[in-house]
Amino acid sequence: MKIAVIIAAGGTGKRMGRPKQFLPLAGRAVVEWTIEVFRKVKDVDQIILVVSGEDLERAKNLGVKVVEGGEERGDSVKNGLKAISPDCDLVIIQDGARPLITPDIIEKAIGEAQEHGAVVVGVPVKDTIKKVERGALIVERSLDRDELWHAQTPQIFRYDIITRAYAKRASATDDAKLVEDLGIKVKMVMGSYENIKITTPEDVIVAEAILRNRNVLPK
Amino acid sequence: MKIAVIIAAGGTGKRMGRPKQFLPLAGRAVVEWTIEVFRKVKDVDQIILVVSGEDLERAKNLGVKVVEGGEERGDSVKNGLKAISPDCDLVIIQDGARPLITPDIIEKAIGEAQEHGAVVVGVPVKDTIKKVERGALIVERSLDRDELWHAQTPQIFRYDIITRAYAKRASATDDAKLVEDLGIKVKMVMGSYENIKITTPEDVIVAEAILRNRNVLPK
Repeated sequence: MKIAVIIAAGGTGKRMGRPKQFLPLAGRAVVEWTIEVFRKVKDVDQIILVVSGEDLERAKNLGVKVVEGGEERGDSVKNGLKAISPDCDLVIIQDGARPLITPDIIEKAIGEAQEHGAVVVGVPVKDTIKKVERGALIVERSLDRDELWHAQTPQIFRYDIITRAYAKRASATDDAKLVEDLGIKVKMVMGSYENIKITTPEDVIVAEAILRNRNVLPK
Repeated sequence: MKIAVIIAAGGTGKRMGRPKQFLPLAGRAVVEWTIEVFRKVKDVDQIILVVSGEDLERAKNLGVKVVEGGEERGDSVKNGLKAISPDCDLVIIQDGARPLITPDIIEKAIGEAQEHGAVVVGVPVKDTIKKVERGALIVERSLDRDELWHAQTPQIFRYDIITRAYAKRASATDDAKLVEDLGIKVKMVMGSYENIKITTPEDVIVAEAILRNRNVLPK
């Protein structure tokens, strides 16, 4: 089996002033931690890192194939897909800003993807989720949380499925949504609440606490 | 204006083996941190701590009125409501296991509660939320995240509204839901992503990192 990994790190950090994937996390860029995890996964054949034009230079030292992203996240993933050898079986799409994913979850998701063709890693929601009217912020209703999951990454697809999904449209912040829209059933795979997305400097602090707790960093 | 606070700490920690509200957080029980925050809030007239029978003894040293809880969270809040002087204007209901709430958010929510009668503090969801079939874990659909919020606490209500809601029913993990079910409009108030609920030992590590970052603990 051949597996290609697309690490989506094309954001330009409009909200934070600097791209979040390159924030320092215990001495290394967030995205370096992410890449490192996938290097440990069996059958991973190619890792493609998609970054914005301004990050191309620093990304070249990370030891993986680098591709320039596009305007939106979907454009970036599309560019990543073009760079993959078409003989691969599965494509893993991973947020560059999720460095706390672990090889065991990835391997479990790969197993499910071989069976189902399309999987997304996520966790059940813990809080009550409410649907709130935009603007006025009045609660419309409370949702039944037993059936609600947060989608995270990795999301893993058969090569033919994800290329077909992106051939049709490329405007999703969530790749599985494009596949669902093709009418293909997507399987949810239990991830971890620690698999957070680093979007603020506070998240870096949380991530360092998690790494310390895993004994990856000294306590 | 008179405000009563009910701190719901009646859980018996079935999942964790010990009640999460009494986990040590930087040298003090989680619930002590929670109480401390409400002591700093203007117009707070009484603080009522609801705990399980087995926690009554240790709760008595915390300097607030202690009430024994019931079987479910709703029963505990109901017991707390009975202990409030009926001349109070607003009732704040707070999870004992959310020690990272801040006085500024509480005061903003109190202001909104004076205007609207019923408010819940929450934050917009960041990840994509998917509705997943129970058992098979197949994704049914992706929800439009622009209108979805996590409900947290505090939740604040006019005294007459919350007593009416609990007179009717008492089986909610979320107090605002009971009020919504009366047909009363509930206003969402922006909280903080740091206002996490401590449910696992890992959450304690995250909470300590947040306290260090706030300079409450030494770095």
